[in-house]
Parts: sequence; structure tokens; C-alpha cells
Amino acid sequence: MYTLYIANKNYSSWSLRPWILLTQLGIAFDEKLTPFLGTSSSWSAFRAFSPTGKVPCLHDGDIAVWDSLSIAEYVAEQHPGAWPTDARARAWARSAAAEMHSGFEALRSHCPMNCGIRLQLNAQPPALTRDLARLQELWSEGFDRFGGPYLAGAAFSAVDAFYAPVVFRIQSYQLAVDDRVGAYVQHMLALPGMRSWYGAALKETWRDPDHEEETLRQGVLLQDLRAA
Amino acid sequence: MYTLYIANKNYSSWSLRPWILLTQLGIAFDEKLTPFLGTSSSWSAFRAFSPTGKVPCLHDGDIAVWDSLSIAEYVAEQHPGAWPTDARARAWARSAAAEMHSGFEALRSHCPMNCGIRLQLNAQPPALTRDLARLQELWSEGFDRFGGPYLAGAAFSAVDAFYAPVVFRIQSYQLAVDDRVGAYVQHMLALPGMRSWYGAALKETWRDPDHEEETLRQGVLLQDLRAA
Ligand SMILES: N[C@@H](CCC(=O)N[C@@H](CS)C(=O)NCC(=O)O)C(=O)O
Ligand SMILES: N[C@@H](CCC(=O)N[C@@H](CS)C(=O)NCC(=O)O)C(=O)O
Repeated sequence: MYTLYIANKNYSSWSLRPWILLTQLGIAFDEKLTPFLGTSSSWSAFRAFSPTGKVPCLHDGDIAVWDSLSIAEYVAEQHPGAWPTDARARAWARSAAAEMHSGFEALRSHCPMNCGIRLQLNAQPPALTRDLARLQELWSEGFDRFGGPYLAGAAFSAVDAFYAPVVFRIQSYQLAVDDRVGAYVQHMLALPGMRSWYGAALKETWRDPDHEEETLRQGVLLQDLRAA
Repeated sequence: MYTLYIANKNYSSWSLRPWILLTQLGIAFDEKLTPFLGTSSSWSAFRAFSPTGKVPCLHDGDIAVWDSLSIAEYVAEQHPGAWPTDARARAWARSAAAEMHSGFEALRSHCPMNCGIRLQLNAQPPALTRDLARLQELWSEGFDRFGGPYLAGAAFSAVDAFYAPVVFRIQSYQLAVDDRVGAYVQHMLALPGMRSWYGAALKETWRDPDHEEETLRQGVLLQDLRAA
């Protein structure tokens, strides 16, 4: 049985990726959640189970697999449905996931994941506009080439898992997107795994000052739906 | 036949990764090198062959595979030796490659790849010291667990390709490393593929002002071995 180490569901975008992948594929795992403690203390706490001091980390017996993308490949070796079965769709899905893994810096820094809040951005810096344009170009290419409703075809796969945090960001920051992208966001939000993650995020009462400050710096708070 | 799009060998660390992987595995490919033209013009030039406007990008017939890590996985499907054949070594190698793909920010920003120069760093910021400590911890773990001389065992694999730019950085910035790490650096520098890349980098006469400035900001130039 896999053990998946993650952090707060409300904040931890990297944790969500393998969690939603395993959950939507119906692969059993033990979840171990360690809340953030502020940067340097989290590192020490997370080092107990993750060599980089970061989450997520998957344990399979005595094998530790750190980093979300490496976890996706590890899982895919044992569960081929993790990536699309069509070779072209798979090449595209892996490229799109890798692009997210090391890119979309503006989207990640201006719209930190914070599932339970709704916020009106102060401004949309040019770098964020560029990231959103690329995001929509990429997703639209996926729908055109592979027919939807998922990014790389008829089945949920690791590329959807890699963009799952963006789905929550679009909801939290009310980002303007075109109709097809908006329909995909709604489709994703309705998945059992996404609803379960979101529900748990709203119930969390830990507040990490760094994450809260980072979020509130971006704009005007409209709503906070989390448990007090 | 694959076509691999890359930029200047002297500067482009991401290009080096798939290039050295294909070269060391003896996989034939056509190389298409487009020099950097300064940030926004490179983007337009690179968009002609790469959806992100970044290098590297691999074309296999009409399939475009962008991003170094996705290229490694694409190649690995057709050439199983790209990752270690042992499952434990493979999980470790993929985690280490993914860690480089999205991490080691201080090493990447303080020691930009510039193969042909030798430089004495002005200072070693704490974040760089932490990255170097993690790097040596990681590599040493690989040698201990899989027996060397490569990071994940007896054969060159994609994880060595992912750390190949670090090998050039250690040489250029004369970074202090322990003996085993130093021996690995020498072993890597002596590989036919690394010598060929390095020789071509020294012959290049393009100079990209952004890359040059970024490099010289880090310290005192000791030597410039490149063709005038
Ligand atoms: N490249 C890593 C990124 C992991 C990462 O940055 N995780 C964050 C949480 S989402 C973390 O653990 N940060 C440590 C901290 O905030 O102290 C991956 O894909 O797994
Ligand atoms: N995550 C990408 C990173 C690619 C990347 O950043 N490439 C750089 C060159 S090494 C680039 O093309 N930059 C565009 C520019 O400098 O204009 C990968 O792994 O391939």
C-alpha cells in the first residue's frame, strides 16, 4: 500500500497533484498530512519523510519517491492509465505536465492556491496575462486534438492532475477564461476527488501566516468560506 | 529520425540535457541550433518550433515534444536504457531528475551555465551553500546505493543528463566539492559527448549580452577560453 505525505489541503498545490491522480484512478493509499509550520520549520518536519524537505512524497514500502512528477511516473509504471494510452496524447500530456512543473511562475506567484477564499485581484500584471494566454492556448489545443472533456481525451489522466491546482486558482481569483476553459473548470470541480479535497480544505482551521499574507497581498478579499 | 532544437552550447543548460542523453545513448538525431537573440526575440524565433518559445524541443515526425523532462520520457519509451533498468534505481533517478527540473534555484541563478569561462565567485550566498550541500548529499546517496560511477549505477542514464549542466558549472565557478563528487565531475567531463559539446561551445563566437552580464555579475573573471 502506498503512503502519500502531503501538507494542508487548503494551500498545498503540489500535494494535490498526486493525491487527485491516485484518488481519481481509484488507487488505494494512506494519506499522511503534516501542516505547514513556516518555511524553515516545515523543512525540518518534512525532512523526516521527504529528502527535499518538501511535499508531496510517496512511500511504497522502503522506496521513497519525492516530487509530484516523479510520483506520477512511478504510479504510471504500475497503473498504465495514469497517462493517456494513445502515444500522441501521452507525449502531449507529459509535455504539458512538465511545462507546469517548471513554468507558469506568474500564475503560481500571483495566485497562490488558497481553496477556501474568493479574491478580486488588484491588478493583472503582464506576466500573469501571458501565463493565462498560454494556459488557454494549451488547454484548447488539448481539447481540439484529443476531443475532451479532459485535457488529453476522454479519460482523466496525470495532465489533469497537474493542472488541478489551476482549477482552484481560477475559482478563487475569479480569473476570466473563455467558455471551453470555463466548462473544463466546472467539470473538474464536480469530480468526486476534487469535491472531497475542497471539502476537507474548507474544514481545516490551521492558518499559515506566510500563505495568508501572500494571498491577501494580491487583492481584495471577497469571501472566506473556511471553518473559523 | 529525431530532430532536436537547441540554443547556444555555451549557455543553454536545458538544451544540453536531452542532447547529452541522445548522444551518450548513441541515438541518431538531427541537431538544429538557433542562437539566443535576447529574451523577447528568442521567444518569437523559438515559437517557430517550440510551443513554449523555449528550447529544447524534440520533433519526431509531426510530434513535438517540448521540455527536457518530457523528452527524456519520450525517448525512454523507445529506448529503455534512458532510465536505469533496476526499478529502485529508476525511481530514485526520476526523483532526482525531477528535483533538478524544478529546484536548485540558487545554483541556477548564481552560477548560470557559461561553459567557456572560469570565474571566482564574489560570495557564496547561504541559499547557494544549501543547494550545494543538497547536491552533494543527493549524489553521494546515489553512489552509495547504486555503486557508481554514474549517479544511478554502472550506466549513464537520464539522471546524469539532468545534472550534466551542474558538472560544467562546478568547472566554471570552481565550486568546492568533496572527493567523490569531484571524481564524478572529472568522469563526466571526459565522456565523448561532454567533450564534443564543450569543444563546440568554445568555438561559438555569438555573445548574448544578457547571459554575459548575468555571469559577470557573479564574480571576477579568471579566464575566457572561448574563440574570439
Ligand atoms: N517540485 C516539487 C515542488 C514541491 C513543493 O514546492 N512543495 C511545497 C508545498 S506545495 C513545499 O513543501 N514547501 C515547503 C515549505 O513551504 O516549507 C514537486 O513537484 O513535488
Ligand atoms: N522547463 C524547460 C526549461 C527550458 C528553458 O528555460 N530554456 C531556456 C534556455 S536554456 C530558454 O529557451 N529560454 C528562452 C530565452 O532565454 O529566451 C525544460 O526543461 O526544457
